[in-house]
Amino acid sequence: MKIIDISLPLNNQTPVYPGNVSLSVSIHHAIPEHATQLSTITMGSHTGTHIDAPAHAVAGAMTLDKIPLENFIGPCRVFDLSKEDDEAVTKKMLEDKNVKKGERILLKTRNSLRGLKEFYDDYVYLDGDAADYLAGISVMLVGIDALSIKKRGGDDHRPHTSLLSKNIPIIEGLNLTNVSEGSYELFCPPLNFTNIDGAPTRAVLIQHA
Amino acid sequence: MKIIDISLPLNNQTPVYPGNVSLSVSIHHAIPEHATQLSTITMGSHTGTHIDAPAHAVAGAMTLDKIPLENFIGPCRVFDLSKEDDEAVTKKMLEDKNVKKGERILLKTRNSLRGLKEFYDDYVYLDGDAADYLAGISVMLVGIDALSIKKRGGDDHRPHTSLLSKNIPIIEGLNLTNVSEGSYELFCPPLNFTNIDGAPTRAVLIQHA
Repeated sequence: MKIIDISLPLNNQTPVYPGNVSLSVSIHHAIPEHATQLSTITMGSHTGTHIDAPAHAVAGAMTLDKIPLENFIGPCRVFDLSKEDDEAVTKKMLEDKNVKKGERILLKTRNSLRGLKEFYDDYVYLDGDAADYLAGISVMLVGIDALSIKKRGGDDHRPHTSLLSKNIPIIEGLNLTNVSEGSYELFCPPLNFTNIDGAPTRAVLIQHA
Repeated sequence: MKIIDISLPLNNQTPVYPGNVSLSVSIHHAIPEHATQLSTITMGSHTGTHIDAPAHAVAGAMTLDKIPLENFIGPCRVFDLSKEDDEAVTKKMLEDKNVKKGERILLKTRNSLRGLKEFYDDYVYLDGDAADYLAGISVMLVGIDALSIKKRGGDDHRPHTSLLSKNIPIIEGLNLTNVSEGSYELFCPPLNFTNIDGAPTRAVLIQHA
């Protein structure tokens, strides 16, 4: 069994999507003045590798704690689209993969080759028709290696709204640099916040030999 | 496959260990003024269900990111000690369970029956001799259903130091109310913070039918 970490590192240098709360970590108290060291963390609910709950983009929709843990745990497929030149992941690319109902789908794009040490505007995103396509199939989860699944500043909100209005959670901020196309076991249950729009997670893939 | 959530809920009512940073969640911006809802989270590194890294109690020791993910993912045993009257989990109780090197051990005590909606001083903890015993066996992880593995205000720091000085991470704040004694698969990798003393995690057990 091989464990592959697909989470971004979290620290004071972690980039956040513009307009989001900055990530800040500081020492609350330390050894030897105290018997233990404790830190204070301030962050946005959509920091690093994180889950978007329906309430993130659909008024009055499900908060994170209402999504079954099954959506976050189980078989998944990673599609390697990092050789594609398009600015977005398209419906056509997904049709070629024969996506089925109930699948957990992670999209590896050029973003994973570029890395995410700094935020950049021209990240590869999911286009609106592709989001409608996945929502129509009723997949269980969609993930991407960008801090947002939607085009930076774009007016087409379907990458959020088509998926989230069908209660399909989205995982953003994946690090798929070292992951090949294929089938894995995914574990990415988010922190157990109640009544929230999203939360960070430690996402890992398990590959069985 | 059954997924059992063993994590405490996180919100503005979540109790924290005295002296720790309070947990606070608030709306950063909301729909319809913005296209999305985002929240701001402030919390301590040892909030709710969380991992203690060696650096939590041993000056200069390993931070969380240096612990292999294998410590947090794999087979585990839950010991149901909730019928015991002692104020602590003792070496004798553990000897009776035949603990072996490399095991992940979760301790269910009366705390799980009492619940953790409020903090209380007289929680069941691990005693120093019992901690030495587990450290001597070189288990891979130790968990307990209290916000600290150490007696409240106690001078015996071995429940932290014996385990952490051997790079055995501790998971605290487990909710084992609905978990029976037995063998499970444990998944509790913490948030991917670098150079930190500990971090929250979403801990789950998988039970195969």
